[in-house]
Amino acid sequence: MKKVRIVGSGLVGTSIGLALAGHNHGVEMADIDAPRAALAQKLVGIAPPGKAELTIFAIPTSSLEQVIDNEYQLNPKSTFIDIASTKTKSNLLVATVAGLSQRFCGTHPMAGREIGGPESARADLFQGRPWIYTPTPATAEDVIEEVLWLIATVGGQAFLMDAQAHDQAVALVSHLPQIGASLVAHLLQGAKPEFLALAGQGLRDTTRIAGSDALMWSEIISDNKTYILPLLLELNDHITGLIATIDEKQEVQKFIEGGNKGRQAIPGKHGGVVRSYHFLPIVIEDKPGQLAALFHECAEAKVNIEDLSIEHSPGQFTGLITLALSHNDASILASHLSSRGWSVHEVRK
Amino acid sequence: MKKVRIVGSGLVGTSIGLALAGHNHGVEMADIDAPRAALAQKLVGIAPPGKAELTIFAIPTSSLEQVIDNEYQLNPKSTFIDIASTKTKSNLLVATVAGLSQRFCGTHPMAGREIGGPESARADLFQGRPWIYTPTPATAEDVIEEVLWLIATVGGQAFLMDAQAHDQAVALVSHLPQIGASLVAHLLQGAKPEFLALAGQGLRDTTRIAGSDALMWSEIISDNKTYILPLLLELNDHITGLIATIDEKQEVQKFIEGGNKGRQAIPGKHGGVVRSYHFLPIVIEDKPGQLAALFHECAEAKVNIEDLSIEHSPGQFTGLITLALSHNDASILASHLSSRGWSVHEVRK
Repeated sequence: MKKVRIVGSGLVGTSIGLALAGHNHGVEMADIDAPRAALAQKLVGIAPPGKAELTIFAIPTSSLEQVIDNEYQLNPKSTFIDIASTKTKSNLLVATVAGLSQRFCGTHPMAGREIGGPESARADLFQGRPWIYTPTPATAEDVIEEVLWLIATVGGQAFLMDAQAHDQAVALVSHLPQIGASLVAHLLQGAKPEFLALAGQGLRDTTRIAGSDALMWSEIISDNKTYILPLLLELNDHITGLIATIDEKQEVQKFIEGGNKGRQAIPGKHGGVVRSYHFLPIVIEDKPGQLAALFHECAEAKVNIEDLSIEHSPGQFTGLITLALSHNDASILASHLSSRGWSVHEVRK
Repeated sequence: MKKVRIVGSGLVGTSIGLALAGHNHGVEMADIDAPRAALAQKLVGIAPPGKAELTIFAIPTSSLEQVIDNEYQLNPKSTFIDIASTKTKSNLLVATVAGLSQRFCGTHPMAGREIGGPESARADLFQGRPWIYTPTPATAEDVIEEVLWLIATVGGQAFLMDAQAHDQAVALVSHLPQIGASLVAHLLQGAKPEFLALAGQGLRDTTRIAGSDALMWSEIISDNKTYILPLLLELNDHITGLIATIDEKQEVQKFIEGGNKGRQAIPGKHGGVVRSYHFLPIVIEDKPGQLAALFHECAEAKVNIEDLSIEHSPGQFTGLITLALSHNDASILASHLSSRGWSVHEVRK
């Protein structure tokens, strides 16, 4: 049994606590907000006495600055890690505390929820999710081992990266889409309700993450401005270019084609190449049990659903569900469903 | 039985043909590409002889210009409609043909697929989808009746709008998210594969529609530049503003908050206010039948799934499925699933 001290009792900190407690490790929850720490502690169980072997900073980098000295003095033999979304800044902060660099390793679990707080924490939050760790040349071997132990224990998947490469990568795959979604959503403010009533899945998907926490994101964007700024300048160039050439159909086409290519570059499920699925659209009535009944049929037909999406129409109680399956399974399921009277579109190719 | 002539045998034209043929109406398919028209005709059945009572232009506005005179001379007593994504331009074209304005009504079915061609057509494409119609003061009463008959027959939901209001609305809810998604995806071109391997659901959702057809979109954007340009200038202002204030955390926070507000303005399912769902996360093994087995349990528990999403982790064969249910159904399902050994997070609030 290990003793772990978690500084920061928000969603991520408490979720790590729950996951470790689930494996019978002793967890001590701390927070600048005492009632919050008390709630988190209640969720993860009783904190054992003694010094912590591992200290996890589950707080924003701006708060790390305020507690780092104190925590190192409290447990000088502990291993220290943080879980903030940017990594070069925490390394800089750690380097200001003599002796700490050897005992520290930055990490970033790529998991979260659209809601925060210890009450939203989940022991399974990291299950199967990538968890990046970014040691510096100063980081001791046993510290890295401790990090790998933690990631494995909570069910995450460890990825080794350089801190700079990490920050550059997340600027592109995480911070850029956040800014893009917020940009589009910005323009919806004050729009006529009858315009917004026509919103389809495209608008919903493009702006889903625009609902994210503003305080947290203002910190992430400021922390990572080194890598975000060049992307913003590039965005700016593309918009300026589109404005200038909106009368030239060929230029507009090139712009959309560039987006096609970028989209194709995103790896598919399991981080591999995009698999070729067959998409089977089924119209269902939006009444209790329809979706369950549909999947009951899928179970009977013994097919494997790779992915699915649901579309709803405004003001009408029908929905279109699109299932992604292998071509073979799609044929099997299409015949099965049709024979049972479901409104399924026949497989043509 | 009505005779309908459909000029344009692509996805939308052929889908209208299939839906009408399914209700025993006579459909004549036409296209500038003869083999394409022949395939579409084969799919919808044999064209009856005689004049068409209704002519549907299922072609881009640039092609409308080339055929409109000829079609009016062919069937001067017919009703004419088009289905292009922008409406002011088709009205302008129609006004150039003497006598046609009375017989014409622009329409826009808000339905489509990520793939095109008659072979992808579906009789149920318009089922439950909004279908906007934009008559002008010149449009005759019986023409509007014919439009409403068509929309009802193919299962769509008719929305009356002014052509300008339509074009302004779709610039915001359809063309802007397309441009936003293409912009973000643009920057992914040439990115390091190890960066893109970290892509999560946020990037995938934000760029999903960036895969759309470039030729079709270059036409839509050019046609609707009157309403798209002001939005692009606004986008540009926001990016310039963000670049200038990236060092001021409060300004960045305001930017993200603006996106929060815009996102909240999008109406939820059924065009009403966003319902309050409970989100139930379940970790499943990614092996055949897991999803089907899960929904089999949902059917047994007699709960109604309102929405769902699937998340996959790179390189690992587990997935997180999040079900949206009423709070009551979520409690029922959580207990049911837990008792059957599923990895479900307990309902806490």
